[in-house]
Amino acid sequence: MSKLLIVGTVAFDAIETPFGKTNKILGGAATYISLAASHFNVESGIVSVVGGDFPKEFLQKLNQKNIDTSGIEIIEDGKTFFWSGKYHNDLNARDTLTTELNVLADFEPKVPKHFQNPDFLMLGNLHPAVQMDVIQQIPQRPKLVALDTMNFWMDNTWDELMEVIAKVDVITINDEEARQMSGEYSLVKAAQKIHKMGPQHVVIKKGEHGALLFNNGDAFFAPALPLEEVFDPTGAGDTFAGGFIGYLASTHDVSFENMKRAVISGSNLASFCVEKFGTERMLDLTKEEIQNRLQEFKQLTQFDIDLS
Amino acid sequence: MSKLLIVGTVAFDAIETPFGKTNKILGGAATYISLAASHFNVESGIVSVVGGDFPKEFLQKLNQKNIDTSGIEIIEDGKTFFWSGKYHNDLNARDTLTTELNVLADFEPKVPKHFQNPDFLMLGNLHPAVQMDVIQQIPQRPKLVALDTMNFWMDNTWDELMEVIAKVDVITINDEEARQMSGEYSLVKAAQKIHKMGPQHVVIKKGEHGALLFNNGDAFFAPALPLEEVFDPTGAGDTFAGGFIGYLASTHDVSFENMKRAVISGSNLASFCVEKFGTERMLDLTKEEIQNRLQEFKQLTQFDIDLS
Repeated sequence: MSKLLIVGTVAFDAIETPFGKTNKILGGAATYISLAASHFNVESGIVSVVGGDFPKEFLQKLNQKNIDTSGIEIIEDGKTFFWSGKYHNDLNARDTLTTELNVLADFEPKVPKHFQNPDFLMLGNLHPAVQMDVIQQIPQRPKLVALDTMNFWMDNTWDELMEVIAKVDVITINDEEARQMSGEYSLVKAAQKIHKMGPQHVVIKKGEHGALLFNNGDAFFAPALPLEEVFDPTGAGDTFAGGFIGYLASTHDVSFENMKRAVISGSNLASFCVEKFGTERMLDLTKEEIQNRLQEFKQLTQFDIDLS
Repeated sequence: MSKLLIVGTVAFDAIETPFGKTNKILGGAATYISLAASHFNVESGIVSVVGGDFPKEFLQKLNQKNIDTSGIEIIEDGKTFFWSGKYHNDLNARDTLTTELNVLADFEPKVPKHFQNPDFLMLGNLHPAVQMDVIQQIPQRPKLVALDTMNFWMDNTWDELMEVIAKVDVITINDEEARQMSGEYSLVKAAQKIHKMGPQHVVIKKGEHGALLFNNGDAFFAPALPLEEVFDPTGAGDTFAGGFIGYLASTHDVSFENMKRAVISGSNLASFCVEKFGTERMLDLTKEEIQNRLQEFKQLTQFDIDLS
């Protein structure tokens, strides 16, 4: 079974959408990535940090999904990273109400010994120096390294971001970030420029408009499933990344054809994520539901046309 | 060979994009629809009106593509409908600089005798009373009637729009218009409500984000081809509609499976339209280019995943 190491935040989120409001619930990039990946046949572990206020039950929720949490450092006298946000009526825009870094401010990632030889490495959205630190703790290069990032790091830590990006195989970013990173409006041109920064594969997430995969001239597009209702978009991008890397790790195949399936798997998992608040849907999701929705993705996209 | 009747504007357009500026060139919904449909094996004719200022060469351009222009009335002492617009840098937004209705203000459509029995009828974006007038001039119901409209008619002629929409099989509108028409943000819910207004098939155009086809619970998605450069988006929506109805008419098959192919054909033609100013690209496009790009659409969207 492939080993998948996931680095990223494990956090408290408080979310307000037009449909309701939560208290502090389980959140964070590594949480969503690992829960999405848990639906595939992989052995995954998280490297992260939380405070003494982080409930044991939250860690148990992850353990029950066969996610190794021994790499989540607990700073007993510290507080867990906390984010709160409020979505606008159309759910396409949100305001961040609170960002308390807390223990994340001095995070020094420590990869547990039994995860220093992962087959797949997913660097969730974090300070690029932390992402680089993790790469350096792994003596033998994994089969595939993927990285997620955001505009904040482009604005504030550009040089460190460029250093770590040069070392990865896949980058996942959203459309606005791809435009900012490349200075190109056309996503085709943006991907071409980002290729030159290092990653052979560029995955551009367009939210409700789907995701594009670029690989030196080849392109593949996965739509988002058209849904009657989006309940809470929090974590959809990370869930997409987790479904993507989880599928690749479980199939142990990094060909472009298999990456297409991985992008579809990411879109599939993300389509469930937004149906309930936070991680709820990832926790109760069944294999059968996933397979049924894959069938919907096929119906949505597959056509047969005469090319003669 | 199927007969396709197209009703819509034939116009002068003056376009300004970040890449350049045109004088008065050939434009109008019926022009784009008929040129896109001319790439399929159909016998098509236009019902429209122009002024005495409309150059004979423009009509000849259409005739050379086997488009029957005998239904384009020429009001010798009138002026042709004129639109001019300027696109913003990202080409996703535009400002209308001029709209001179001219002869269109009193347009009374007259379907020529030899086109009163079309197999397919495409009602381009026009006053809904004009669209209804054309329907009433056709004694026997065509195999399929499609209609395009816009927010202007929703704002100003809602009741007349509802009357004509109740009589069509397919409506093509953009995402914002679908939301306005239905009062629903979710496009799935919007399509459900629009179904109830009459059309069995709802095609929602999302510009650079592709197009969705809905048919009572079934959905299909065609992406827009990711392009390095969009030169001029004018007419892309009408070209999409022309590729869609042209494909349906040439195959004489209105099953949902064939509508999927028609939506892909529409996206295919639209991807060429935006490569040059106005109708230029539609005029020089070859069968081989269309077939090659269909292959690109297949590569972009087709995947093979194990559903076991």
